[in-house]
Amino acid sequence: MKQLTRREVFAAVGITTGSCVLSSCVSEQLASVRAKKSDFPWTFARLDPNLTADRAYNHYYEGHCMYGVFKSIVSQLAEQWGKPYESFPFDMMKYGAGGVLGWGSLCGGLNGNAAVISLFATTETEGRLLTQELFRWYEQTALPVYVPQKAKLKMEMLQSVSNSVLCHVSVSNWCKVSGHPAFGEQHYERCARLTADMAEKTVQTLNTNLAGQFAAAHSLTEETKWCKTCHAKGTELENSLGEMNCSTCHSYLADKHP
Amino acid sequence: MKQLTRREVFAAVGITTGSCVLSSCVSEQLASVRAKKSDFPWTFARLDPNLTADRAYNHYYEGHCMYGVFKSIVSQLAEQWGKPYESFPFDMMKYGAGGVLGWGSLCGGLNGNAAVISLFATTETEGRLLTQELFRWYEQTALPVYVPQKAKLKMEMLQSVSNSVLCHVSVSNWCKVSGHPAFGEQHYERCARLTADMAEKTVQTLNTNLAGQFAAAHSLTEETKWCKTCHAKGTELENSLGEMNCSTCHSYLADKHP
Repeated sequence: MKQLTRREVFAAVGITTGSCVLSSCVSEQLASVRAKKSDFPWTFARLDPNLTADRAYNHYYEGHCMYGVFKSIVSQLAEQWGKPYESFPFDMMKYGAGGVLGWGSLCGGLNGNAAVISLFATTETEGRLLTQELFRWYEQTALPVYVPQKAKLKMEMLQSVSNSVLCHVSVSNWCKVSGHPAFGEQHYERCARLTADMAEKTVQTLNTNLAGQFAAAHSLTEETKWCKTCHAKGTELENSLGEMNCSTCHSYLADKHP
Repeated sequence: MKQLTRREVFAAVGITTGSCVLSSCVSEQLASVRAKKSDFPWTFARLDPNLTADRAYNHYYEGHCMYGVFKSIVSQLAEQWGKPYESFPFDMMKYGAGGVLGWGSLCGGLNGNAAVISLFATTETEGRLLTQELFRWYEQTALPVYVPQKAKLKMEMLQSVSNSVLCHVSVSNWCKVSGHPAFGEQHYERCARLTADMAEKTVQTLNTNLAGQFAAAHSLTEETKWCKTCHAKGTELENSLGEMNCSTCHSYLADKHP
Protein backbone atom coordinates (compact mmCIF):
# COMPACT_ATOMS: atom_id res chain seq x y z
CA MET A 1 0.00 0.00 0.00
CA LYS A 2 1.22 3.47 -0.79
CA GLN A 3 2.65 5.27 2.26
CA LEU A 4 0.16 8.09 2.91
CA THR A 5 1.28 11.46 4.16
CA ARG A 6 -0.41 12.86 7.26
CA ARG A 7 -2.37 15.25 5.02
CA GLU A 8 -3.70 12.45 2.85
CA VAL A 9 -4.67 10.36 5.86
CA PHE A 10 -6.67 13.18 7.30
CA ALA A 11 -8.27 14.20 4.05
CA ALA A 12 -9.55 10.59 3.81
CA VAL A 13 -10.59 10.29 7.44
CA GLY A 14 -12.17 13.72 7.39
CA ILE A 15 -14.43 12.74 4.52
CA THR A 16 -15.39 9.31 5.82
CA THR A 17 -15.97 10.18 9.45
CA GLY A 18 -18.99 12.28 8.61
CA SER A 19 -20.65 9.49 6.64
CA CYS A 20 -19.53 6.67 8.96
CA VAL A 21 -18.10 4.64 6.04
CA LEU A 22 -15.02 3.10 7.62
CA SER A 23 -13.47 0.61 5.20
CA SER A 24 -10.61 -1.56 6.48
CA CYS A 25 -8.21 0.72 4.64
CA VAL A 26 -9.53 3.80 6.41
CA SER A 27 -9.56 1.89 9.72
CA GLU A 28 -5.84 1.31 9.30
CA GLN A 29 -5.32 5.00 8.59
CA LEU A 30 -7.41 5.84 11.64
CA ALA A 31 -5.29 3.55 13.82
CA SER A 32 -2.16 5.23 12.51
CA VAL A 33 -3.62 8.65 13.30
CA ARG A 34 -4.62 7.52 16.81
CA ALA A 35 -1.13 6.17 17.43
CA LYS A 36 0.29 9.61 16.61
CA LYS A 37 -2.02 11.63 18.84
CA SER A 38 0.36 12.13 21.74
CA ASP A 39 2.88 13.92 19.52
CA PHE A 40 3.20 17.65 19.08
CA PRO A 41 1.88 19.30 17.01
CA TRP A 42 -1.55 17.83 17.49
CA THR A 43 -3.25 16.65 14.32
CA PHE A 44 -5.98 18.74 12.70
CA ALA A 45 -8.86 17.09 10.86
CA ARG A 46 -11.17 18.90 8.44
CA LEU A 47 -14.11 20.61 10.20
CA ASP A 48 -17.29 22.30 9.02
CA PRO A 49 -16.72 26.10 9.18
CA ASN A 50 -20.44 26.93 9.50
CA LEU A 51 -21.04 24.48 12.32
CA THR A 52 -17.90 25.80 14.03
CA ALA A 53 -19.23 29.35 13.79
CA ASP A 54 -22.50 28.32 15.47
CA ARG A 55 -20.62 26.59 18.26
CA ALA A 56 -18.27 29.57 18.75
CA TYR A 57 -21.23 31.97 19.01
CA ASN A 58 -22.73 29.89 21.82
CA HIS A 59 -19.40 29.24 23.55
CA TYR A 60 -18.81 33.01 23.63
CA TYR A 61 -21.74 33.34 26.00
CA GLU A 62 -20.17 30.68 28.27
CA GLY A 63 -16.61 32.05 28.39
CA HIS A 64 -16.10 34.97 26.00
CA CYS A 65 -14.00 35.38 22.85
CA MET A 66 -10.74 33.42 23.29
CA TYR A 67 -12.58 30.50 24.88
CA GLY A 68 -15.24 30.67 22.16
CA VAL A 69 -12.79 30.41 19.26
CA PHE A 70 -10.56 27.78 20.87
CA LYS A 71 -13.26 25.52 22.30
CA SER A 72 -15.45 25.59 19.18
CA ILE A 73 -12.59 24.02 17.21
CA VAL A 74 -10.67 21.78 19.62
CA SER A 75 -13.78 20.38 21.35
CA GLN A 76 -15.04 19.00 18.02
CA LEU A 77 -11.81 17.01 17.66
CA ALA A 78 -12.11 15.91 21.31
CA GLU A 79 -15.63 14.60 20.62
CA GLN A 80 -14.41 12.69 17.54
CA TRP A 81 -11.03 11.43 18.78
CA GLY A 82 -10.82 11.74 22.57
CA LYS A 83 -7.19 12.13 23.64
CA PRO A 84 -5.16 14.30 23.52
CA TYR A 85 -7.78 16.92 22.56
CA GLU A 86 -10.06 16.21 25.53
CA SER A 87 -7.18 16.69 27.98
CA PHE A 88 -6.96 20.42 27.21
CA PRO A 89 -8.12 22.65 30.10
CA PHE A 90 -10.56 24.66 27.97
CA ASP A 91 -11.67 26.87 30.88
CA MET A 92 -8.15 28.31 31.06
CA MET A 93 -8.89 30.16 27.80
CA LYS A 94 -11.47 32.40 29.48
CA TYR A 95 -8.59 34.74 30.42
CA GLY A 96 -8.49 36.21 26.90
CA ALA A 97 -11.82 38.03 27.40
CA GLY A 98 -11.75 41.73 26.51
CA GLY A 99 -8.08 41.74 25.53
CA VAL A 100 -7.11 39.74 28.68
CA LEU A 101 -9.62 40.16 31.49
CA GLY A 102 -10.82 43.53 30.26
CA TRP A 103 -7.38 45.08 29.72
CA GLY A 104 -8.19 45.87 26.08
CA SER A 105 -4.90 44.47 24.72
CA LEU A 106 -4.88 41.72 22.06
CA CYS A 107 -8.39 40.75 20.89
CA GLY A 108 -9.18 37.51 22.72
CA GLY A 109 -10.59 35.89 19.59
CA LEU A 110 -7.25 36.42 17.85
CA ASN A 111 -5.40 35.14 20.91
CA GLY A 112 -7.54 32.00 20.54
CA ASN A 113 -6.94 31.86 16.76
CA ALA A 114 -3.19 32.01 17.26
CA ALA A 115 -3.28 29.32 19.97
CA VAL A 116 -5.32 27.00 17.72
CA ILE A 117 -2.99 27.50 14.76
CA SER A 118 0.04 26.94 16.99
CA LEU A 119 -1.46 23.65 18.23
CA PHE A 120 -1.77 22.30 14.68
CA ALA A 121 0.93 24.00 12.58
CA THR A 122 3.58 21.54 11.43
CA THR A 123 6.35 24.16 11.16
CA GLU A 124 7.00 27.60 12.68
CA THR A 125 6.78 29.19 9.25
CA GLU A 126 3.40 27.56 8.55
CA GLY A 127 2.05 28.83 11.89
CA ARG A 128 3.36 32.33 11.22
CA LEU A 129 1.84 32.54 7.72
CA LEU A 130 -1.59 31.27 8.75
CA THR A 131 -1.74 33.49 11.85
CA GLN A 132 -0.57 36.50 9.87
CA GLU A 133 -3.35 36.02 7.35
CA LEU A 134 -6.00 35.80 10.11
CA PHE A 135 -4.66 38.89 11.88
CA ARG A 136 -4.56 40.95 8.67
CA TRP A 137 -8.05 39.77 7.69
CA TYR A 138 -9.30 40.92 11.12
CA GLU A 139 -7.60 44.32 10.81
CA GLN A 140 -8.96 45.04 7.32
CA THR A 141 -12.45 43.49 7.15
CA ALA A 142 -15.83 44.99 8.08
CA LEU A 143 -17.07 42.72 10.88
CA PRO A 144 -19.11 41.01 12.25
CA VAL A 145 -20.55 39.15 9.27
CA TYR A 146 -22.06 36.12 11.07
CA VAL A 147 -25.80 36.15 11.72
CA PRO A 148 -26.97 33.61 14.33
CA GLN A 149 -30.04 31.49 13.64
CA LYS A 150 -31.17 32.01 17.22
CA ALA A 151 -29.65 35.29 18.36
CA LYS A 152 -29.23 35.84 22.09
CA LEU A 153 -29.99 39.50 21.33
CA LYS A 154 -31.99 40.50 18.26
CA MET A 155 -30.61 43.81 17.02
CA GLU A 156 -29.50 45.65 13.90
CA MET A 157 -25.79 44.81 13.77
CA LEU A 158 -23.62 47.48 12.17
CA GLN A 159 -20.14 46.47 10.99
CA SER A 160 -16.85 48.26 11.56
CA VAL A 161 -13.26 47.87 10.39
CA SER A 162 -10.94 47.62 13.41
CA ASN A 163 -7.67 48.69 11.72
CA SER A 164 -6.10 46.99 14.72
CA VAL A 165 -5.71 43.62 16.42
CA LEU A 166 -6.22 45.31 19.80
CA CYS A 167 -9.53 44.79 21.60
CA HIS A 168 -9.71 48.36 22.90
CA VAL A 169 -9.34 49.88 19.42
CA SER A 170 -11.65 47.35 17.77
CA VAL A 171 -14.40 47.94 20.33
CA SER A 172 -14.09 51.74 20.30
CA ASN A 173 -14.29 51.79 16.48
CA TRP A 174 -17.47 49.73 16.65
CA CYS A 175 -18.92 52.05 19.32
CA LYS A 176 -18.27 55.00 17.00
CA VAL A 177 -20.03 53.30 14.06
CA SER A 178 -22.91 51.74 15.99
CA GLY A 179 -23.57 54.37 18.64
CA HIS A 180 -23.64 51.66 21.29
CA PRO A 181 -21.57 51.83 24.51
CA ALA A 182 -18.40 49.76 25.10
CA PHE A 183 -20.17 47.82 27.84
CA GLY A 184 -23.55 46.13 27.77
CA GLU A 185 -25.57 43.56 25.86
CA GLN A 186 -25.14 45.07 22.36
CA HIS A 187 -21.37 44.96 22.77
CA TYR A 188 -21.52 41.33 23.95
CA GLU A 189 -23.72 40.38 21.00
CA ARG A 190 -21.28 42.07 18.59
CA CYS A 191 -18.31 40.22 20.09
CA ALA A 192 -20.21 36.89 20.10
CA ARG A 193 -20.80 37.27 16.34
CA LEU A 194 -17.18 38.36 15.81
CA THR A 195 -16.06 35.26 17.73
CA ALA A 196 -18.12 33.15 15.31
CA ASP A 197 -16.47 34.93 12.36
CA MET A 198 -12.99 34.29 13.75
CA ALA A 199 -13.63 30.61 14.46
CA GLU A 200 -15.12 30.12 10.98
CA LYS A 201 -12.16 31.88 9.33
CA THR A 202 -9.68 29.81 11.36
CA VAL A 203 -11.30 26.55 10.26
CA GLN A 204 -11.50 27.68 6.63
CA THR A 205 -7.79 28.55 6.79
CA LEU A 206 -6.80 25.25 8.42
CA ASN A 207 -8.95 23.25 5.97
CA THR A 208 -7.38 25.02 3.00
CA ASN A 209 -3.92 24.49 4.44
CA LEU A 210 -4.65 20.79 5.02
CA ALA A 211 -5.55 20.49 1.35
CA GLY A 212 -2.25 22.16 0.44
CA GLN A 213 -4.09 25.15 -1.05
CA PHE A 214 -3.40 27.98 1.41
CA ALA A 215 -2.48 31.36 -0.06
CA ALA A 216 -2.50 34.66 1.85
CA ALA A 217 -5.14 37.12 0.62
CA HIS A 218 -4.20 40.11 2.80
CA SER A 219 -0.99 42.13 3.06
CA LEU A 220 0.46 45.14 4.90
CA THR A 221 -1.07 48.50 3.98
CA GLU A 222 1.08 50.71 1.76
CA GLU A 223 1.36 53.23 4.60
CA THR A 224 2.73 50.63 7.03
CA LYS A 225 5.15 49.34 4.38
CA TRP A 226 6.47 52.90 4.13
CA CYS A 227 6.95 53.16 7.93
CA LYS A 228 8.86 49.90 7.88
CA THR A 229 11.41 51.17 5.38
CA CYS A 230 13.07 53.09 8.25
CA HIS A 231 11.95 51.32 11.46
CA ALA A 232 11.84 47.56 10.73
CA LYS A 233 14.48 44.84 10.82
CA GLY A 234 17.54 45.54 8.70
CA THR A 235 16.78 49.27 8.29
CA GLU A 236 18.73 52.32 9.48
CA LEU A 237 16.80 52.78 12.75
CA GLU A 238 15.71 49.17 13.37
CA ASN A 239 13.85 50.35 16.51
CA SER A 240 10.40 48.90 16.02
CA LEU A 241 9.09 45.34 16.21
CA GLY A 242 5.69 44.41 14.89
CA GLU A 243 3.24 43.78 12.09
CA MET A 244 0.36 45.93 13.35
CA ASN A 245 -1.00 48.75 11.22
CA CYS A 246 1.11 51.79 12.26
CA SER A 247 -1.15 54.78 11.63
CA THR A 248 -4.01 53.49 13.77
CA CYS A 249 -2.09 54.54 16.90
CA HIS A 250 0.55 56.80 15.34
CA SER A 251 -1.97 59.18 13.78
CA TYR A 252 0.17 62.12 14.85
CA LEU A 253 3.90 62.09 14.18
CA ALA A 254 6.40 63.97 16.33
CA ASP A 255 7.46 67.40 15.04
CA LYS A 256 10.98 66.09 14.42
CA HIS A 257 9.71 63.23 12.21
CA PRO A 258 10.76 63.71 8.55
CA MET B 1 -8.69 14.56 61.89
CA LYS B 2 -9.46 18.16 61.16
CA GLN B 3 -10.80 18.68 57.61
CA LEU B 4 -8.03 20.62 55.82
CA THR B 5 -8.73 23.27 53.23
CA ARG B 6 -7.00 22.98 49.84
CA ARG B 7 -4.67 25.81 50.88
CA GLU B 8 -3.64 24.05 54.07
CA VAL B 9 -3.08 20.76 52.25
CA PHE B 10 -0.77 22.40 49.79
CA ALA B 11 1.08 24.44 52.35
CA ALA B 12 1.85 21.17 54.14
CA VAL B 13 2.67 19.16 51.03
CA GLY B 14 4.76 22.00 49.65
CA ILE B 15 6.97 21.98 52.73
CA THR B 16 7.36 18.22 53.13
CA THR B 17 7.88 17.26 49.50
CA GLY B 18 11.21 19.04 49.41
CA SER B 19 12.56 17.15 52.41
CA CYS B 20 10.96 13.79 51.51
CA VAL B 21 9.34 13.50 54.98
CA LEU B 22 6.01 11.90 54.11
CA SER B 23 4.22 10.95 57.31
CA SER B 24 1.02 8.91 56.99
CA CYS B 25 -0.93 12.12 57.61
CA VAL B 26 0.76 13.90 54.73
CA SER B 27 0.40 10.79 52.53
CA GLU B 28 -3.35 11.02 53.07
CA GLN B 29 -3.33 14.69 52.13
CA LEU B 30 -1.27 13.86 49.06
CA ALA B 31 -3.77 11.19 48.01
CA SER B 32 -6.59 13.68 48.41
CA VAL B 33 -4.71 16.21 46.29
CA ARG B 34 -4.02 13.59 43.60
CA ALA B 35 -7.67 12.60 43.52
CA LYS B 36 -8.58 16.20 42.73
CA LYS B 37 -6.13 16.75 39.89
CA SER B 38 -8.52 16.20 37.00
CA ASP B 39 -10.73 19.09 38.12
CA PHE B 40 -10.58 22.65 36.85
CA PRO B 41 -9.03 24.88 38.02
CA TRP B 42 -5.82 22.89 38.32
CA THR B 43 -4.20 22.98 41.74
CA PHE B 44 -1.20 25.19 42.37
CA ALA B 45 1.51 24.14 44.84
CA ARG B 46 4.10 26.49 46.30
CA LEU B 47 7.18 26.85 44.05
CA ASP B 48 10.59 28.46 44.48
CA PRO B 49 10.53 31.85 42.68
CA ASN B 50 14.31 31.96 42.14
CA LEU B 51 14.49 28.48 40.68
CA THR B 52 11.50 29.33 38.48
CA ALA B 53 13.29 32.43 37.19
CA ASP B 54 16.36 30.35 36.24
CA ARG B 55 14.17 27.85 34.38
CA ALA B 56 12.25 30.61 32.60
CA TYR B 57 15.47 32.23 31.42
CA ASN B 58 16.60 28.96 29.83
CA HIS B 59 13.16 28.08 28.45
CA TYR B 60 13.08 31.48 26.72
CA TYR B 61 15.96 30.37 24.54
CA GLU B 62 13.98 27.22 23.59
CA GLY B 63 10.64 28.86 22.79
CA HIS B 64 10.58 32.57 23.67
CA CYS B 65 8.65 34.57 26.26
CA MET B 66 5.14 33.06 26.62
CA TYR B 67 6.53 29.53 26.50
CA GLY B 68 9.26 30.50 28.97
CA VAL B 69 6.90 31.84 31.61
CA PHE B 70 4.28 29.11 31.21
CA LYS B 71 6.62 26.11 31.00
CA SER B 72 8.90 27.23 33.85
CA ILE B 73 5.92 27.07 36.23
CA VAL B 74 3.65 24.29 34.96
CA SER B 75 6.47 21.88 34.10
CA GLN B 76 7.65 21.92 37.74
CA LEU B 77 4.20 20.74 38.83
CA ALA B 78 4.25 18.15 36.02
CA GLU B 79 7.57 16.80 37.32
CA GLN B 80 6.20 16.59 40.87
CA TRP B 81 2.67 15.39 40.21
CA GLY B 82 2.37 14.04 36.66
CA LYS B 83 -1.19 14.41 35.38
CA PRO B 84 -2.91 16.68 34.52
CA TYR B 85 0.04 19.07 34.31
CA GLU B 86 2.13 16.85 32.02
CA SER B 87 -0.74 16.59 29.50
CA PHE B 88 -0.44 20.28 28.58
CA PRO B 89 0.92 20.86 25.05
CA PHE B 90 3.67 23.26 26.17
CA ASP B 91 4.97 23.82 22.64
CA MET B 92 1.66 25.50 21.75
CA MET B 93 2.74 28.46 23.90
CA LYS B 94 5.54 29.39 21.50
CA TYR B 95 2.98 31.44 19.56
CA GLY B 96 3.17 34.31 22.08
CA ALA B 97 6.70 35.26 20.95
CA GLY B 98 7.16 38.95 20.15
CA GLY B 99 3.54 39.88 20.90
CA VAL B 100 2.22 36.86 18.91
CA LEU B 101 4.69 35.68 16.29
CA GLY B 102 6.35 39.07 15.96
CA TRP B 103 3.16 41.13 15.68
CA GLY B 104 4.19 43.31 18.65
CA SER B 105 0.78 43.08 20.37
CA LEU B 106 0.47 41.77 23.96
CA CYS B 107 3.87 40.94 25.54
CA GLY B 108 4.16 37.16 25.32
CA GLY B 109 5.43 36.89 28.88
CA LEU B 110 2.26 38.56 30.12
CA ASN B 111 0.16 36.32 27.86
CA GLY B 112 1.87 33.41 29.61
CA ASN B 113 1.37 35.00 33.05
CA ALA B 114 -2.34 35.41 32.43
CA ALA B 115 -2.68 31.83 31.16
CA VAL B 116 -0.91 30.46 34.24
CA ILE B 117 -3.05 32.51 36.63
CA SER B 118 -6.20 31.44 34.77
CA LEU B 119 -5.20 27.78 35.12
CA PHE B 120 -4.96 28.05 38.91
CA ALA B 121 -7.34 30.84 40.01
CA THR B 122 -10.24 29.50 42.01
CA THR B 123 -12.63 32.31 41.03
CA GLU B 124 -12.88 34.80 38.16
CA THR B 125 -12.35 37.69 40.58
CA GLU B 126 -9.20 36.09 42.00
CA GLY B 127 -7.79 35.60 38.48
CA ARG B 128 -8.61 39.18 37.54
CA LEU B 129 -6.97 40.68 40.64
CA LEU B 130 -3.76 38.64 40.37
CA THR B 131 -3.42 39.27 36.62
CA GLN B 132 -4.11 42.98 37.07
CA GLU B 133 -1.34 43.26 39.64
CA LEU B 134 1.15 41.51 37.32
CA PHE B 135 0.19 43.67 34.34
CA ARG B 136 0.46 46.92 36.36
CA TRP B 137 3.80 45.84 37.85
CA TYR B 138 5.08 45.22 34.30
CA GLU B 139 3.86 48.61 33.06
CA GLN B 140 5.38 50.58 35.92
CA THR B 141 8.65 48.81 36.85
CA ALA B 142 12.18 49.30 35.48
CA LEU B 143 13.01 45.89 33.96
CA PRO B 144 14.78 43.51 33.55
CA VAL B 145 16.05 42.95 37.09
CA TYR B 146 17.09 39.28 36.80
CA VAL B 147 20.77 38.52 36.31
CA PRO B 148 21.53 34.98 35.10
CA GLN B 149 24.30 32.98 36.74
CA LYS B 150 25.38 31.76 33.32
CA ALA B 151 24.28 34.39 30.84
CA LYS B 152 23.82 33.31 27.22
CA LEU B 153 25.08 36.80 26.34
CA LYS B 154 27.29 38.75 28.73
CA MET B 155 26.40 42.42 28.39
CA GLU B 156 25.63 45.55 30.38
CA MET B 157 21.85 45.35 30.74
CA LEU B 158 20.09 48.71 30.97
CA GLN B 159 16.55 48.78 32.34
CA SER B 160 13.50 50.57 30.96
CA VAL B 161 9.93 51.21 32.07
CA SER B 162 7.52 49.99 29.40
CA ASN B 163 4.47 52.10 30.37
CA SER B 164 2.59 49.49 28.33
CA VAL B 165 1.71 45.80 28.25
CA LEU B 166 2.34 45.78 24.49
CA CYS B 167 5.51 44.11 23.19
CA HIS B 168 6.11 46.70 20.48
CA VAL B 169 6.05 49.61 22.96
CA SER B 170 8.04 47.77 25.60
CA VAL B 171 10.78 46.81 23.12
CA SER B 172 10.97 50.26 21.50
CA ASN B 173 11.30 51.92 24.93
CA TRP B 174 14.17 49.60 25.77
CA CYS B 175 15.83 50.32 22.40
CA LYS B 176 15.65 54.04 23.18
CA VAL B 177 17.24 53.57 26.62
CA SER B 178 19.84 50.97 25.65
CA GLY B 179 20.76 52.08 22.14
CA HIS B 180 20.39 48.50 20.92
CA PRO B 181 18.26 47.54 17.90
CA ALA B 182 14.84 45.85 18.16
CA PHE B 183 16.26 42.70 16.59
CA GLY B 184 19.39 40.77 17.47
CA GLU B 185 21.11 39.06 20.38
CA GLN B 186 20.98 41.95 22.86
CA HIS B 187 17.22 42.18 22.43
CA TYR B 188 16.86 38.42 22.93
CA GLU B 189 18.99 38.54 26.07
CA ARG B 190 16.89 41.43 27.44
CA CYS B 191 13.65 39.52 26.79
CA ALA B 192 15.08 36.30 28.28
CA ARG B 193 15.83 38.17 31.52
CA LEU B 194 12.40 39.86 31.42
CA THR B 195 10.83 36.40 31.00
CA ALA B 196 12.66 35.30 34.15
CA ASP B 197 11.35 38.38 36.00
CA MET B 198 7.76 37.67 34.91
CA ALA B 199 7.90 33.99 35.87
CA GLU B 200 9.41 34.87 39.26
CA LYS B 201 6.77 37.54 39.91
CA THR B 202 3.98 35.15 38.90
CA VAL B 203 5.18 32.51 41.34
CA GLN B 204 5.64 35.06 44.13
CA THR B 205 2.09 36.25 43.50
CA LEU B 206 0.62 32.73 43.42
CA ASN B 207 2.56 31.71 46.56
CA THR B 208 1.33 34.79 48.42
CA ASN B 209 -2.21 34.15 47.26
CA LEU B 210 -1.98 30.50 48.36
CA ALA B 211 -1.02 31.71 51.82
CA GLY B 212 -4.05 34.03 51.82
CA GLN B 213 -1.80 37.10 51.93
CA PHE B 214 -2.17 38.64 48.45
CA ALA B 215 -2.60 42.42 48.29
CA ALA B 216 -2.20 44.53 45.14
CA ALA B 217 0.77 46.91 45.28
CA HIS B 218 0.16 48.76 41.99
CA SER B 219 -2.75 50.88 40.81
CA LEU B 220 -3.85 52.95 37.79
CA THR B 221 -1.86 56.15 37.23
CA GLU B 222 -3.65 59.37 38.22
CA GLU B 223 -3.67 60.41 34.55
CA THR B 224 -5.44 57.23 33.44
CA LYS B 225 -7.91 57.55 36.30
CA TRP B 226 -8.75 61.00 34.97
CA CYS B 227 -9.31 59.66 31.42
CA LYS B 228 -11.63 57.04 32.82
CA THR B 229 -13.92 59.58 34.43
CA CYS B 230 -15.39 60.27 30.96
CA HIS B 231 -14.61 57.15 28.88
CA ALA B 232 -14.97 54.10 31.16
CA LYS B 233 -17.95 51.99 32.15
CA GLY B 234 -20.82 53.91 33.69
CA THR B 235 -19.57 57.34 32.47
CA GLU B 236 -21.13 59.80 30.04
CA LEU B 237 -19.27 58.55 26.94
CA GLU B 238 -18.67 54.90 27.96
CA ASN B 239 -16.77 54.36 24.70
CA SER B 240 -13.53 52.82 25.86
CA LEU B 241 -12.72 49.40 27.24
CA GLY B 242 -9.43 48.66 28.93
CA GLU B 243 -7.00 49.00 31.82
CA MET B 244 -3.90 49.99 29.83
CA ASN B 245 -2.12 53.25 30.58
CA CYS B 246 -3.84 55.79 28.26
CA SER B 247 -1.19 58.43 27.62
CA THR B 248 1.42 55.98 26.33
CA CYS B 249 -0.44 55.83 23.00
CA HIS B 250 -2.71 58.87 23.35
CA SER B 251 0.15 61.31 23.81
CA TYR B 252 -1.59 63.78 21.52
CA LEU B 253 -5.29 64.53 22.02
CA ALA B 254 -7.58 65.61 19.19
CA ASP B 255 -8.13 69.38 18.85
CA LYS B 256 -11.76 68.94 19.87
CA HIS B 257 -10.84 67.17 23.12
CA PRO B 258 -11.69 69.31 26.20
